[in-house]
Amino acid sequence: MARPDRGTTLIDVARAAGVSRQTVSNAINAPHLLRAETLAQVRSVIDRLGYQPNRSARSLRTRQSRLIGYCVPRPNPDRLGWVLDEFLHAVADAARGAGYHIVVFTPDSAQRELDSYATMLQTGGADGFLLTDITHRDRRPGWLRRRGVPFVSYGRLPASAGPAWVDVDGAAGVAAAVEHLVGLGHRRIAFLGWPEGHRVGDDRADGWRSAMAAHRLAATLRGYTDDTITAAAEEAGRMLDAARPPTAVIAVSDTVAVGALRAARARGLAPGRDLSVVGFDDTPSAALLTPPLTSVSQPLQEAARLLVEMLVARLAGRRPERRSVLLEPTLVVRGSTGPPPPGR
Amino acid sequence: MARPDRGTTLIDVARAAGVSRQTVSNAINAPHLLRAETLAQVRSVIDRLGYQPNRSARSLRTRQSRLIGYCVPRPNPDRLGWVLDEFLHAVADAARGAGYHIVVFTPDSAQRELDSYATMLQTGGADGFLLTDITHRDRRPGWLRRRGVPFVSYGRLPASAGPAWVDVDGAAGVAAAVEHLVGLGHRRIAFLGWPEGHRVGDDRADGWRSAMAAHRLAATLRGYTDDTITAAAEEAGRMLDAARPPTAVIAVSDTVAVGALRAARARGLAPGRDLSVVGFDDTPSAALLTPPLTSVSQPLQEAARLLVEMLVARLAGRRPERRSVLLEPTLVVRGSTGPPPPGR
Repeated sequence: MARPDRGTTLIDVARAAGVSRQTVSNAINAPHLLRAETLAQVRSVIDRLGYQPNRSARSLRTRQSRLIGYCVPRPNPDRLGWVLDEFLHAVADAARGAGYHIVVFTPDSAQRELDSYATMLQTGGADGFLLTDITHRDRRPGWLRRRGVPFVSYGRLPASAGPAWVDVDGAAGVAAAVEHLVGLGHRRIAFLGWPEGHRVGDDRADGWRSAMAAHRLAATLRGYTDDTITAAAEEAGRMLDAARPPTAVIAVSDTVAVGALRAARARGLAPGRDLSVVGFDDTPSAALLTPPLTSVSQPLQEAARLLVEMLVARLAGRRPERRSVLLEPTLVVRGSTGPPPPGR
Repeated sequence: MARPDRGTTLIDVARAAGVSRQTVSNAINAPHLLRAETLAQVRSVIDRLGYQPNRSARSLRTRQSRLIGYCVPRPNPDRLGWVLDEFLHAVADAARGAGYHIVVFTPDSAQRELDSYATMLQTGGADGFLLTDITHRDRRPGWLRRRGVPFVSYGRLPASAGPAWVDVDGAAGVAAAVEHLVGLGHRRIAFLGWPEGHRVGDDRADGWRSAMAAHRLAATLRGYTDDTITAAAEEAGRMLDAARPPTAVIAVSDTVAVGALRAARARGLAPGRDLSVVGFDDTPSAALLTPPLTSVSQPLQEAARLLVEMLVARLAGRRPERRSVLLEPTLVVRGSTGPPPPGR
């Protein structure tokens, strides 16, 4: 194996591989354009000759790092891990196909979340950003837009942010859960959600309200909780201790659903038999719970592919063909839902 | 808010902020060296003047991208998500402190896993690599070493690889599980592990064997399974159906432990009461299982900090102070372990 030889040029590689200079350039910058055999052959020559095209020299010419910045959400032990594994993998896969890589970073501190974005920009560490976990009054979209920095968001944005987002239709997901439960015979279907004013949560609650109305069922059993297992278990407990408790609970997230399962079990109720519970997100833990949790699943692969496609178009100075995409989620039915107990 | 002005120089920033040029340089390249107030002040001037130190120009000077490459393991639905969320976060935090960022990438294909490393190197996309999920006969350490590329591994390496690794003492973790179970009164303690020849698995099995020997207990109940829930449930079932089944099972991973819980439940045994089960890794799902899973927890924050410290030393051309570090894991006791059933 040859040690890298700083004197080897792209022309040397093209000659040795018997291909054009453009083909060598593509092998490095746009490998997806080449046939697998050609790519393998050029790569083996690059490797043999120890050719090192310098990303930095290229970046200086194009003013691009070909890096997409992604600020990784901080894990919380009282919350189910978000679907980071699968999402990150899907995003990295899609980026590779477009000749980009994902550079992950963490916030400097909760108080100064924008500082970490500023550092990435100031050092040329990323050409654009992928945002997730968009919160109510998120300062990032406006901040990036004012600076003319390309970004896309997994989670819808207000029109003022110059939207480039992909989101999952939360209302449709929860409506599908209502249909499933009504089909099983439930009528007292509660919604255990976050306090109002949180866009994602309000959207999911709306799906419950309108689907209940479509079946002429009263949407009165509404609980409010933070997105932690502990708080959700307390609020679910209050709902179950009421004079006329629900026979089914749709939770705004899998974390909240785990709280509902705990509250049921603490009262001697068997989830799936005495109380049906539906979650949202289909986190990796959902299938492992006892009973396995019925949950609304997000199409992560498709979301990742679209997000990268839209961001890459923006980075190339093009308008993305679609500026916002709402994807349909799927209800995954498991053992935590069943017919209501007899006589209820 | 000023638009970036390509004409603004580092000297302009130093003058406007009333600090030295070195301080401005540190604010960009080594922010951890500055006091928080100084850093905030310099950053606000950088932002106001729209100064953009170019990473590419800097890289060309230093021949460094200041990026650490990390090939993200592919998720598998029949396996518990590894502790990626927390590990990735810890690594990104540690890297930021040292002025580096983590660039994640995915393998081109299972057959050609080295190609993705070659691409990263050939395009100058990373200065060095962080390896995880080291497998038996892993080709990556030798391949990187032959090319003189700095890397560190979470998982021990053979001496021939020129070790720079951090690992968790799996034998000690499993031995702690045996102590816990013996303390509860168990004597028929099984080990459900991977086929032999897998270093991580063999290490954990050794911990069981030697701890059993220390208590003069027979280490005969040994099951073999792949690291999937389905296969583990089958093998655990065979052990439970034997003439003299174990009263406790130590699983080589949380995934295998979930299989053991399933097998127990399928036979009408209540885990934690009729059969004790211990996992390994303390994955985010462990605490959510029914009963919550007793599991061996890896010190991920500490491992991440050490890995980055060792890699950064190598990237700076220094020998790291420690070339290999074995960390002690902790047993987290939850409801899946209890005294053996009376008379067993």
